[in-house]
Amino acid sequence: MMVSFPDEIIDALSIDCLIFGFEGGELQLLLVKHADGISKGRWALPGGWIKYNEGLNEAAYRVLQALTGVKDVYLEQLQAFGNLERFPVKRVLTVAFYSLVKPKDYELIPGFTASDVRWFKIRDIPDMPYDHNKILDFGLNFLKHKVRHEPIGFNLLPEKFTLLQLQELYESILSIKLDKPNFRRKFMKMDLLVPCNEKQQDVAHRAANLYRFDKEVYDRLTEKGFTFEF
Amino acid sequence: MMVSFPDEIIDALSIDCLIFGFEGGELQLLLVKHADGISKGRWALPGGWIKYNEGLNEAAYRVLQALTGVKDVYLEQLQAFGNLERFPVKRVLTVAFYSLVKPKDYELIPGFTASDVRWFKIRDIPDMPYDHNKILDFGLNFLKHKVRHEPIGFNLLPEKFTLLQLQELYESILSIKLDKPNFRRKFMKMDLLVPCNEKQQDVAHRAANLYRFDKEVYDRLTEKGFTFEF
Repeated sequence: MMVSFPDEIIDALSIDCLIFGFEGGELQLLLVKHADGISKGRWALPGGWIKYNEGLNEAAYRVLQALTGVKDVYLEQLQAFGNLERFPVKRVLTVAFYSLVKPKDYELIPGFTASDVRWFKIRDIPDMPYDHNKILDFGLNFLKHKVRHEPIGFNLLPEKFTLLQLQELYESILSIKLDKPNFRRKFMKMDLLVPCNEKQQDVAHRAANLYRFDKEVYDRLTEKGFTFEF
Repeated sequence: MMVSFPDEIIDALSIDCLIFGFEGGELQLLLVKHADGISKGRWALPGGWIKYNEGLNEAAYRVLQALTGVKDVYLEQLQAFGNLERFPVKRVLTVAFYSLVKPKDYELIPGFTASDVRWFKIRDIPDMPYDHNKILDFGLNFLKHKVRHEPIGFNLLPEKFTLLQLQELYESILSIKLDKPNFRRKFMKMDLLVPCNEKQQDVAHRAANLYRFDKEVYDRLTEKGFTFEF
């Protein structure tokens, strides 16, 4: 039993990326518009075939950069999706990766199989090809679980942020409204936030205090885990 | 760019199973001895090729039963492993699954590509072929994280168990010795354990009280998560 592969591509193995960002008080996701093929014109997760001589992580970074221009992010594997029905013609196993980023840090440049690239608010995500909406649901559930057991936001929020921004991040991930005093009290108890002794600039409303994460506490809580009851 | 596949097998995709059991106060893992091929005579994780027209879960259940006789377990995906170096000749992506079971519930029957099958204490696991030891390390870290944030043991312990058995399970997964009074106090506070008002039978030492899990509390804590600080 031998299978012959072309030198370049294994078209039974692909990667797909969930690149989450936070901007304007809402969780966002980076999508690309297919330039060609059966999904031409449709918005989808940035993804593509894995090359024959390429590791999974390597493929993920290459495809993401080629399609969207986004590089220097930290991609982590979620899991593999390999239902027989997820792709037409034959089963294609895709390995899903995710990253949490600040959209403003990245210049978006569509390329390779993408004719366009942009951020979508999670609630505006269209019907995507293949099982991309299912992969997104899996990723969102993963994030919901994550925020209950680890600090989150270091890669999503600006270096200095307000408590309102932090609360909006949690609300956006959990899809619930949180009680403000309760949220703040619980957060303050964790010693995770350091006051910058600065206020917001250039805002129409009353300027709020700015905070930053205590990196040491953040890393310790990430390592050790905790339970944040909302 | 077309790739031709044989009808039956895709030899670039495999599954591997981490079947954890708990017996004699120690965490154990189910291994099979390769009957043939480049790893003939070596002990390894139960695993095999995924068929062309087979879902990932389906492949995992089929391969596990064919190699070990173990069926009616609940397999959950860990993640995919696809390093270029993990398999000789060419890259084979494997999807790792895990399960937590009571060894006594299963009759072991080696078959298919396995000449033998048995439970190994985690500390007695031999050097395995491919990256199986790495997959095991990943699985053990996953379990360590899991026991800190969810109850564990429902599928690993007998229906009625002693507090010592429960502590041994946690010690075995975390690879640390725990303080007995402290462990018991923390566990009792969670309302997870129900006294059976029965004692152990047929033991040489002083018979200990038996407990069972409160299924409702167990499910709620699994859903909600918590942090168990050891």
